[in-house]
Amino acid sequence: MEADGRDALVVGVDFGTLSGRALVVRVSDGAELGSAVHTYSHGVVDEVLPATGARLPPDWALQVPGDYVDVLKNAVPAAIEAAGVDPADVIGIGTDFTACTMVPVGSDGTPLSELVAFVSRPHAYVKLWKHHAAQGQADRINALAAKRGEFWLARYGGLISSEWEFAKGLQVLEEDPEVYAAIDHWVEGADWIVWQLTGRYTRNACTAGYKGIRQDGKYPSREFLAELNPDFADFVTDKVEWPIIDLGDRAGSLTAQAAEWTGLPEGIAVSAGNVDAHVTNPAGQAIQPGQMVAIMGTSTCHTMNSEQLHEVPGMCGVVDGGITKGLWGYEAGQSGVGDIFGWFVHNSVPESYAAEARSRGISVHELLTEKAATQQVAEHGLLALDWHSGNRSVLVDHELSGMIIGQTLATKPEDIYRALIEATAFGARTIVEAFNGAGVPVREFVVAGGLIKNALLMQIYADVLNMPLTVVSSEQAPALGSAIHAAVAAGAYPDVAAAAAAMGKAERDVYAPIPDHAAAYDQLFAEYTTLHDYFGRGANDVMHRLRGLRRAALDRSTATPIDR
Amino acid sequence: MEADGRDALVVGVDFGTLSGRALVVRVSDGAELGSAVHTYSHGVVDEVLPATGARLPPDWALQVPGDYVDVLKNAVPAAIEAAGVDPADVIGIGTDFTACTMVPVGSDGTPLSELVAFVSRPHAYVKLWKHHAAQGQADRINALAAKRGEFWLARYGGLISSEWEFAKGLQVLEEDPEVYAAIDHWVEGADWIVWQLTGRYTRNACTAGYKGIRQDGKYPSREFLAELNPDFADFVTDKVEWPIIDLGDRAGSLTAQAAEWTGLPEGIAVSAGNVDAHVTNPAGQAIQPGQMVAIMGTSTCHTMNSEQLHEVPGMCGVVDGGITKGLWGYEAGQSGVGDIFGWFVHNSVPESYAAEARSRGISVHELLTEKAATQQVAEHGLLALDWHSGNRSVLVDHELSGMIIGQTLATKPEDIYRALIEATAFGARTIVEAFNGAGVPVREFVVAGGLIKNALLMQIYADVLNMPLTVVSSEQAPALGSAIHAAVAAGAYPDVAAAAAAMGKAERDVYAPIPDHAAAYDQLFAEYTTLHDYFGRGANDVMHRLRGLRRAALDRSTATPIDR
Repeated sequence: MEADGRDALVVGVDFGTLSGRALVVRVSDGAELGSAVHTYSHGVVDEVLPATGARLPPDWALQVPGDYVDVLKNAVPAAIEAAGVDPADVIGIGTDFTACTMVPVGSDGTPLSELVAFVSRPHAYVKLWKHHAAQGQADRINALAAKRGEFWLARYGGLISSEWEFAKGLQVLEEDPEVYAAIDHWVEGADWIVWQLTGRYTRNACTAGYKGIRQDGKYPSREFLAELNPDFADFVTDKVEWPIIDLGDRAGSLTAQAAEWTGLPEGIAVSAGNVDAHVTNPAGQAIQPGQMVAIMGTSTCHTMNSEQLHEVPGMCGVVDGGITKGLWGYEAGQSGVGDIFGWFVHNSVPESYAAEARSRGISVHELLTEKAATQQVAEHGLLALDWHSGNRSVLVDHELSGMIIGQTLATKPEDIYRALIEATAFGARTIVEAFNGAGVPVREFVVAGGLIKNALLMQIYADVLNMPLTVVSSEQAPALGSAIHAAVAAGAYPDVAAAAAAMGKAERDVYAPIPDHAAAYDQLFAEYTTLHDYFGRGANDVMHRLRGLRRAALDRSTATPIDR
Repeated sequence: MEADGRDALVVGVDFGTLSGRALVVRVSDGAELGSAVHTYSHGVVDEVLPATGARLPPDWALQVPGDYVDVLKNAVPAAIEAAGVDPADVIGIGTDFTACTMVPVGSDGTPLSELVAFVSRPHAYVKLWKHHAAQGQADRINALAAKRGEFWLARYGGLISSEWEFAKGLQVLEEDPEVYAAIDHWVEGADWIVWQLTGRYTRNACTAGYKGIRQDGKYPSREFLAELNPDFADFVTDKVEWPIIDLGDRAGSLTAQAAEWTGLPEGIAVSAGNVDAHVTNPAGQAIQPGQMVAIMGTSTCHTMNSEQLHEVPGMCGVVDGGITKGLWGYEAGQSGVGDIFGWFVHNSVPESYAAEARSRGISVHELLTEKAATQQVAEHGLLALDWHSGNRSVLVDHELSGMIIGQTLATKPEDIYRALIEATAFGARTIVEAFNGAGVPVREFVVAGGLIKNALLMQIYADVLNMPLTVVSSEQAPALGSAIHAAVAAGAYPDVAAAAAAMGKAERDVYAPIPDHAAAYDQLFAEYTTLHDYFGRGANDVMHRLRGLRRAALDRSTATPIDR
């Protein structure tokens, strides 16, 4: 593990929703030597298309692929510089990406949005994971799969998400057939960025399984696709199918161009594309069966290995080798977590709080946390549903929305903030209980991501789950996980397990549940579950109807001369 | 109607929740010549007792009776001065008050809170209408009345409110028997202020009926009271019972002391005590059967005359002569309306909005209204329940709380503001439909109060109710109504109807429903009704349980050394 007598290094690059982060890691022990972040200049495109200024419909979320390449050009060299190391010592680079984030490309990998012919066409752009406008297509996929008894449906908790490859692909076909016709490959962002690094297209087992409905080596059948829409019959063969490589495999070697972008040596190993959540398991040394990793940021992904294949209702998916080769990898998720807290702080916290935070030199999040921390459990009298961004697990329904109950004229901002935190913790417990009830017990709850810095939030999760929390002690866990895969791809370790043991980082029992709190939260969780089922399982579909009325109102609105 | 060749005048004084307003009115035509407001220096006492700094339990709301006298001393002379008239021309004074607001007094009318022996005892203070801590007592009154089949229960929509005389009185007995024993009269604020003006205690038919459970000339029986609590058996005979006078009657003459306070002539007529809502019907010329007046401020009261006695589920009450002598007066109410908007603006509107409003020289309410006004009906995708201060009609349950559903990460403050306005409109429609369904049809909807200044809110009410709105065009309708009663008490008119015809003010059809809006709101109202019944009628009593958990948490909290 040395290069010319010096320590061998790897670089992990984590492509998030708003920015990409590069991390330089020592292969021998996982020491994090330096990192840098590059923010996407276009961010999330969900209001107007930059090229034209045209307003996007509700629930759309696009990105501009050049922003990803800018991370390679900027964050990687900056991380090397921050680490104060010689780039010549880098033996491999690994990446992870948001998913399911889809890039429509031509045969050479050029995104259609970069072609003059398509620059003004929204469907030519990257569909970010949180593009939720293909719900109608997802509904049809689910209904048809249920009707036909497709075996793969249960592998996804009984529901295919509107976020995934097939729903998004079908939306393109049905809303812009010209763009659809121009697509040579319908590529995961995870694989597209590896393509940029290696010059060749590889399709990784993780996203192909979780997002691409690849099960037991096959995709949904031509008959199934034709019944969805005759013009969709060849979607798999024309746009999706491609040789699969496993996680930790070497996808290829760094091209001269990518070496120029990054400042790294040409020809070094590039590991297979991977997902921000899934790379975190090895970063947290949590690849044993029953170790559930929750990567808590704007949303939360839950990933866990098991030796057994079971059908967990409402999970996102179970994929052979989806997290590490040789085990069944389970994924679940909460589509809004930190996003909800951010929305609240941005839209619902009064001037006096902003001023107090400013005068004390702390963030509004910190101020609200401090005020909420003095409360007894249930003191605020509130209960919320954490569906402001829909519900991924266990309901798999992006048409759901938020709810809060119990407000009085004495309700304060910190009360609502705490109730929102608790709602996400109840959402996490709902997922844990679904796994426990399906024969895939959660034995350890391992947390990573930006939210682990909030000690109150962590304690609330420990209390609500009534489980101690293990903390992935790297602040850049996904990037570390990508670096671990890079080390394996470079041949420095025989497999991901060995690399994780040497390079991963976890602290056990950092937060222990407080029995009184856990007992009080049991009562609130029972109330949460009642409302979860009432609003989420069909007893009262008011959330769906409100969405429908909203769409109809917006249609009326855009039909009038008033430009809103 | 002349005094020494000049126009005869009357003064109406409206005692609200936070302040009292005096208005000088010309007897001949109701012209409003001048007014003045005096804010209660103690406001609403709901956190700590001023005399001791002791923290009050949740749901308490007290007042300091000296604040009311200060209105006589300050607002009345200031109104005379503002009017630029000679006080010698004033021939009568009338008052209206919040209700049910109860003053515990000794035999001479001195409030117990003004006695050294009781100054530190919370139960010695005025219990303001929105004191909601006697819910347990109200629950027992209701259960026992239902069990015993008391005929009067149906006259109050099937439920006696925790706000009223008996629940509040029983709370005093059970929580502070020494204070209870010291009470010679359990007096409505409406009658207490008349007592201060005339030097003699009179009990008006309106509050005695609506709040004091006086029906067909009788109160609840000694047997009923004894079964509630043996020590409560003589509550009526010892504390409540007193000769009744009708609305518009002359209660007495202005004493020398009150003349000194007010600057008005000693010996002028003082009209019977009355309620802020009920005096508004004559002010708005809305005393005919089927004319429902909604006085919209922090809360809304609905008052309407009918020739017939019917049992309207969830009404506050029906009282013979409760609004005008000779008709059945119906009352219903929404316990939180403007209060909810104020709470929202104070607690949930971000700094950027406050800054924008400031820079434009408008209020935050105006800014939010302006932003909300550009929306189509249902565009915000939200639905709220307007129970932040409980629900008076038609559920009569102060343990209910607010709810909002449909939030997404795109939800803006103006969306929530509009949804809260709409929720109160749906609450009003629920009341109107209860009356329509019970054989007491609402033929005209007449609005008064501070909220009528908000044109968006008014239009939403017209659209939700699908009825045109008549506006009581006095900005000080209750004070004008009190002045009308003063004129009758002074003998200037034969009865309230004649005085109202000459002095009242109403504009018909100021807001007309827009058919498209009304149709869209029909859909939202159906959703509101489903949630109203789910959370309000026992299908899911989560709001009650959250209140219980909150109380238990606060008990734990105060049991710890942390002083919150």
